[in-house]
Amino acid sequence: MANGVNVKPAEGKLGILIPGLGAVSTTMIAGVFDILAGNGLPIGSVTQMGRIRLGKRTEKRNPLIKDFVPLTDLKDIVFGAWDIHGENAYEVCKRSGVLEDKHLEPIRAQLEAIKPMDAVFDHSYCHNLEVKHAKSAATKWDLVQMVKDDIKKFKEANHCDRMIMLWCGSTECYTPCEDCHETIEALEKAMKANDPRISPSMIYAYAAITSGVPYANGAPNLTVDTPALIQLALREKVAIMGKDFKTGQTLMKTIVAPGLRARCLGLNGWFSTNILGNRDGEVLDDPGSFKTKEVSKLSVIEHILDGKTFPDLYSNYCHKVRIEYYPPRGDAKEGWDNIDIFGWLGYPMQIKINFLCRDSILAAPVALDIALSMDLAMRCGFYGIQEWLSFFFKSPEVREGLYPQHDLFIQKTKYKNTLRYIMGEDLITHLGLDYYAEEDK
Amino acid sequence: MANGVNVKPAEGKLGILIPGLGAVSTTMIAGVFDILAGNGLPIGSVTQMGRIRLGKRTEKRNPLIKDFVPLTDLKDIVFGAWDIHGENAYEVCKRSGVLEDKHLEPIRAQLEAIKPMDAVFDHSYCHNLEVKHAKSAATKWDLVQMVKDDIKKFKEANHCDRMIMLWCGSTECYTPCEDCHETIEALEKAMKANDPRISPSMIYAYAAITSGVPYANGAPNLTVDTPALIQLALREKVAIMGKDFKTGQTLMKTIVAPGLRARCLGLNGWFSTNILGNRDGEVLDDPGSFKTKEVSKLSVIEHILDGKTFPDLYSNYCHKVRIEYYPPRGDAKEGWDNIDIFGWLGYPMQIKINFLCRDSILAAPVALDIALSMDLAMRCGFYGIQEWLSFFFKSPEVREGLYPQHDLFIQKTKYKNTLRYIMGEDLITHLGLDYYAEEDK
Amino acid sequence: MANGVNVKPAEGKLGILIPGLGAVSTTMIAGVFDILAGNGLPIGSVTQMGRIRLGKRTEKRNPLIKDFVPLTDLKDIVFGAWDIHGENAYEVCKRSGVLEDKHLEPIRAQLEAIKPMDAVFDHSYCHNLEVKHAKSAATKWDLVQMVKDDIKKFKEANHCDRMIMLWCGSTECYTPCEDCHETIEALEKAMKANDPRISPSMIYAYAAITSGVPYANGAPNLTVDTPALIQLALREKVAIMGKDFKTGQTLMKTIVAPGLRARCLGLNGWFSTNILGNRDGEVLDDPGSFKTKEVSKLSVIEHILDGKTFPDLYSNYCHKVRIEYYPPRGDAKEGWDNIDIFGWLGYPMQIKINFLCRDSILAAPVALDIALSMDLAMRCGFYGIQEWLSFFFKSPEVREGLYPQHDLFIQKTKYKNTLRYIMGEDLITHLGLDYYAEEDK
Amino acid sequence: MANGVNVKPAEGKLGILIPGLGAVSTTMIAGVFDILAGNGLPIGSVTQMGRIRLGKRTEKRNPLIKDFVPLTDLKDIVFGAWDIHGENAYEVCKRSGVLEDKHLEPIRAQLEAIKPMDAVFDHSYCHNLEVKHAKSAATKWDLVQMVKDDIKKFKEANHCDRMIMLWCGSTECYTPCEDCHETIEALEKAMKANDPRISPSMIYAYAAITSGVPYANGAPNLTVDTPALIQLALREKVAIMGKDFKTGQTLMKTIVAPGLRARCLGLNGWFSTNILGNRDGEVLDDPGSFKTKEVSKLSVIEHILDGKTFPDLYSNYCHKVRIEYYPPRGDAKEGWDNIDIFGWLGYPMQIKINFLCRDSILAAPVALDIALSMDLAMRCGFYGIQEWLSFFFKSPEVREGLYPQHDLFIQKTKYKNTLRYIMGEDLITHLGLDYYAEEDK
Repeated sequence: MANGVNVKPAEGKLGILIPGLGAVSTTMIAGVFDILAGNGLPIGSVTQMGRIRLGKRTEKRNPLIKDFVPLTDLKDIVFGAWDIHGENAYEVCKRSGVLEDKHLEPIRAQLEAIKPMDAVFDHSYCHNLEVKHAKSAATKWDLVQMVKDDIKKFKEANHCDRMIMLWCGSTECYTPCEDCHETIEALEKAMKANDPRISPSMIYAYAAITSGVPYANGAPNLTVDTPALIQLALREKVAIMGKDFKTGQTLMKTIVAPGLRARCLGLNGWFSTNILGNRDGEVLDDPGSFKTKEVSKLSVIEHILDGKTFPDLYSNYCHKVRIEYYPPRGDAKEGWDNIDIFGWLGYPMQIKINFLCRDSILAAPVALDIALSMDLAMRCGFYGIQEWLSFFFKSPEVREGLYPQHDLFIQKTKYKNTLRYIMGEDLITHLGLDYYAEEDK
Repeated sequence: MANGVNVKPAEGKLGILIPGLGAVSTTMIAGVFDILAGNGLPIGSVTQMGRIRLGKRTEKRNPLIKDFVPLTDLKDIVFGAWDIHGENAYEVCKRSGVLEDKHLEPIRAQLEAIKPMDAVFDHSYCHNLEVKHAKSAATKWDLVQMVKDDIKKFKEANHCDRMIMLWCGSTECYTPCEDCHETIEALEKAMKANDPRISPSMIYAYAAITSGVPYANGAPNLTVDTPALIQLALREKVAIMGKDFKTGQTLMKTIVAPGLRARCLGLNGWFSTNILGNRDGEVLDDPGSFKTKEVSKLSVIEHILDGKTFPDLYSNYCHKVRIEYYPPRGDAKEGWDNIDIFGWLGYPMQIKINFLCRDSILAAPVALDIALSMDLAMRCGFYGIQEWLSFFFKSPEVREGLYPQHDLFIQKTKYKNTLRYIMGEDLITHLGLDYYAEEDK
Repeated sequence: MANGVNVKPAEGKLGILIPGLGAVSTTMIAGVFDILAGNGLPIGSVTQMGRIRLGKRTEKRNPLIKDFVPLTDLKDIVFGAWDIHGENAYEVCKRSGVLEDKHLEPIRAQLEAIKPMDAVFDHSYCHNLEVKHAKSAATKWDLVQMVKDDIKKFKEANHCDRMIMLWCGSTECYTPCEDCHETIEALEKAMKANDPRISPSMIYAYAAITSGVPYANGAPNLTVDTPALIQLALREKVAIMGKDFKTGQTLMKTIVAPGLRARCLGLNGWFSTNILGNRDGEVLDDPGSFKTKEVSKLSVIEHILDGKTFPDLYSNYCHKVRIEYYPPRGDAKEGWDNIDIFGWLGYPMQIKINFLCRDSILAAPVALDIALSMDLAMRCGFYGIQEWLSFFFKSPEVREGLYPQHDLFIQKTKYKNTLRYIMGEDLITHLGLDYYAEEDK
Repeated sequence: MANGVNVKPAEGKLGILIPGLGAVSTTMIAGVFDILAGNGLPIGSVTQMGRIRLGKRTEKRNPLIKDFVPLTDLKDIVFGAWDIHGENAYEVCKRSGVLEDKHLEPIRAQLEAIKPMDAVFDHSYCHNLEVKHAKSAATKWDLVQMVKDDIKKFKEANHCDRMIMLWCGSTECYTPCEDCHETIEALEKAMKANDPRISPSMIYAYAAITSGVPYANGAPNLTVDTPALIQLALREKVAIMGKDFKTGQTLMKTIVAPGLRARCLGLNGWFSTNILGNRDGEVLDDPGSFKTKEVSKLSVIEHILDGKTFPDLYSNYCHKVRIEYYPPRGDAKEGWDNIDIFGWLGYPMQIKINFLCRDSILAAPVALDIALSMDLAMRCGFYGIQEWLSFFFKSPEVREGLYPQHDLFIQKTKYKNTLRYIMGEDLITHLGLDYYAEEDK
């Protein structure tokens, strides 16, 4: 362990390719430009602002993560995107109303230069959106080739050394895992047969992986957590990870629920409602898309507050999650949680959390961290599921046979100890009895 | 590490001696009786309800802590107390209104049998209380002898094998650490000279330690975190730990603040107000007692969200804590927190947390866990400051030269990895890359 | 006006007949028994606890309403009920968990004596309930006769001088007003033809009115606000009024919205969510019943904050109401409202209201006040719609051509000035310039 | 009554003279300029946006108040001010951060033209402010003459037909009413003797009244609610009114408390905390200024929920008000109220209100409405206390022997019925039985 991993250096350009040029991705892109121009800080980004303790507390070694691990520098990133609306990144920023003019006007030209490629789209997976710029082809297999071609051209045109694909599109309708998603062969056959069970995101992921490009899934869609695409990633030695950026209410849940569990406080009920007014809210007003999101959101509490392990504490609670499209809120998503807990001898208590958050402001740094960490994984020689990146996802993907870790603090420990492992530093256990052994002498 | 520590078995009776027979301590005592009678569960107690993962996730070893570590069984506990009011435990329970009749009437006789010994009291340390049953002596040194005598008699009368003292009294007025608290000699001299800077809690602690009884401090008073008493504990090979039971709003803070830090979200301000209506609230209405509490409560956020380490995130926030005596609330303490955070490029967001909690319901299992863990420490041969018990304290004591860990999740890791260490199990690091190495083969 | 109305005295017994022996009605009944026994006060009842100012402020005449107006004394009330579950009032109280034993045990025998008659029930109007005790007849017309017969027998058996029927049953499925509800003839024909558009509540109301018994509607069902039943009430000279007891979130809305309007503050959005866990919540989990409730709840804000009258303030807001069945809450309904307002030059502000209320505790006194006021109306010779009782209803009924008054404070003025009118006192206008004219002399 | 009052027309210019050119007054001034320029609407202003129902509901007469009553048109207003800081209105707007550039830049020149005159200031009445531009004179009597001279010059320079003085300065330290405030003679003598009990606001008020200029008090200071100044106003036939603009938390209280009272719901406690970050907050951090504010804020609930009249409902509650200086909030004041109520048989319920408001946005239209209404009063020949304007004040002034009306809805009725009276329209009583008498024919 002391020798760490042999990491390839982060030389040359990194292309970040994004299906879905909406509020989240343009907030990330504009932010990177602003940060490079000295007009803002990457607040919320663990790779850029976070520190990592090394060695014992008394050593006081606490470097920035980006100074400790060889990450791609922000200045070496190139952004590309696909979208059905055809607006450039500046137009999207203005329409979505997340960033103020002081963060858009100085970088307007850079944003206007980002014009999306035509998207792969299928109305049966996303009902509430109007389509203007979609690819047209005879079969889904042909669409794969078109996306692969886009990737290839983008790489050449932008002189990229490495690439990563990051789904920032809308939530697709709920789709269960079926036989066509079980093996690479079944998947390919279904694509050629235009099987309706193959969603646009699967087309992007297949194209990315077979182009040697890692794929991360920022939405709750079933994509790379299908056996077929996992096998493909292992075969092609490409990193994959999902799913759904962990922001807002779910972020709060994975902070608070581990606290309740740590203290063995019981749960009678958890009621969550969300009001949001941006395009995400509009899409989730559709029952099919909502179901996909709901499954992702519900599992968080069910894993952390687990009634099988703690029958006296967590076997009988009511958990409801509601998402409401409420236009006055704009991008400023708001969550209200009512948590009914019980303590000593069963006496009840209540926690109410009102989170006036901003969806894209929370998601942008997470998206950036995922892109940079996926690229790091590839340079470390890691491929397949990157469970160590669970920290960034609402519904983290794991190997079959393992349970996912939803607890934000276990995820953080996993992330940081993996970085220490990569660089050959001692893992932190917080034991610390030795400090007192010394003292006694 | 694999061999663990040679722990003495938990044979015979454990005496838990409590200065302060109030709402918290009687809720703990009544609860233990109810639990033993099968009339309630020790919800909130990590030693009784908590589990500990051992080995790899795939091993599925997850025993109850009390089945893993040799803790004293609840049936082997004997309770004793000192108090100025003279009421027996049943009377205190009825007056404080925490537990309902269904949890008091079946065990009434047991509670009535717990009659407090006369207390050491000093009006200059606690203004708002009326005194009825206080010890009287020429000097504080004489008071020490009287308490030692109480301890000795209690042990004999109750056939105790081991003892532990747990301060559950009111918050004393703020008192800084001065020369008389610096060495054992200075302390003893001051006691003999009736120095006003020696508080009642110091008298109890001195008596306990010199009787070979570990001392834990459930209030924010300066007691065993003075150099004199630390030295005394090391000399006598007795465990000590403090201070202030971590419950309510501070518990929530040490859950939420680590979450913000984990995600590198900045802080502009944190405003906390508490309304509470029990005797604790009445005492804290006094400015001197409030100051002691305020210092303890403020430091939590200042350590976790540390502006020296993260100047761009945490160097310039406004942190206010208010505690208001509000009789309609009774024992049901309520906190309202407003947290002003900022994210990507500095955009502001807000979190509001309203915690309708119950002070004694949260504190009782913490008090029990501390007592049982301190006794375990003694049987492991640990003495001096027990930093691994930080998990239970609002303001955890540490060795000089170390910073305290306030983050509940680091505290939890420290506590559990110490238990694993004691029993010779592998420490958990959450690295987990090996699960995937296997998979690839 | 100075002579008032010739009110018949409240002599003899008043029978209150209740379709629906559930949490609300049994809380009212038990409360009346407790109050008569000196074991509790009728808090929340305007007729019992409210006062009314008479004359000028300087006269200091401010009697209790019940001392000013000749209302039926509580001791002269007899209760009767119909229900499908067959439980007596004591059993319902125990199951619904609203009142504690100290309010039930002393009056247990009185409650047990109240056994419901078999109910009129129709599964197509209420899906979520299981039926045990329903009347069976060939046609709805026959059911009317059975209810009339029940009324007659109850009156004789209990020696009632006067009666009033008060619907406290579950919310029926949404049903629009159609041709069969337009005239008395059409209604009678439809009953005889077993038309599915005739709901159980209409059968009760028809039976009551044609028995000379006034009818008040405590649920949002369409019942006496159909032209047919209004005509019937006018023909039979019987008082009617509806609909839906004003409690909980809607009560708060009709308090807060008039305040915003009074100050000309604009509205961008109002999002309301409710969590409740009693049978009411279970019934409203059915989409049909929810729609009936939603229509009733939405209209409140739309009338008070009226975009036609105030296009710059209220023409473009988003108003959503959600009701969620959440068993942990029990009878303790909880509302969370988020209100997005705007002020001077359009700057936005927010109000959040979290109401931890208790459904039946709020409804019981309203139900009592309605019963006593309807009886008063009859003794005043008032019949048809009793708009002056709008104060007690979520969706007050008015004459065709008038808009309803939802503003709680206009409703209160209307109620009190009607009482003053009845008793021949000056109406209050709050002009008050004369106090200052005097002063100047 | 039908003939109304003989109101003088609103011809020529109205000068609004303001001691205190801070956030509130500049927000009002800038707003008026923006509204005249078509760049915003006077939201929150009852005189500009409010409507008044005339006659019966069926008449559908509901004009704007400003079209019904002869108010001064906004274009005829001229603003003047005194302040210790010397900044012009544009500079104050920029510093206080209430309005955005889109509401300031187009009217910058107009704002810059408003330069304050040197202020009367006394450090003993306001500790937390730094003074730059204060008048200097031998006695307070001399200061009166200087202010009168300022008034005279301003009137001539701006060709004003009428004037009104509106205190928008900081809250002065608490000062009780003493002998020097009892008669005109005592007051004048004290001014000449430089008595420390004569505050700056009294000097302004004396100067205004003796110049024939009405005086309204937007802060909680004791000023025109002293016998001496009331007598002076009556002698000089000048209108006066106070005190403290009703905004924010108190506005909410006078909305919610009347609702609880209307429904006879009892009160166990009301805890209010405010966080605010502007200069108002800074001044109120001083205990003396806070006391003045606290007295004003507490009385609101004590009058509406009156334990003498309703001993079973309101005789025994705990009411606390806290104001906390919290810089992150800026001008965006935030209130959190916890209200413990009880209903039927005494069962408890809770209401929590979180008001994210904006102090100056709420106060500006109130200040404007007061100025225009005071001017209307003068043209109606009204003088002395203008109780009909209670609607706009936190602590409305009344004639000795009358209790103040704090209920916002009684205040609204009083205001509107006074306007109806002035214009010779029928007063509204909401009786409305006649609508139904018609119906029956």
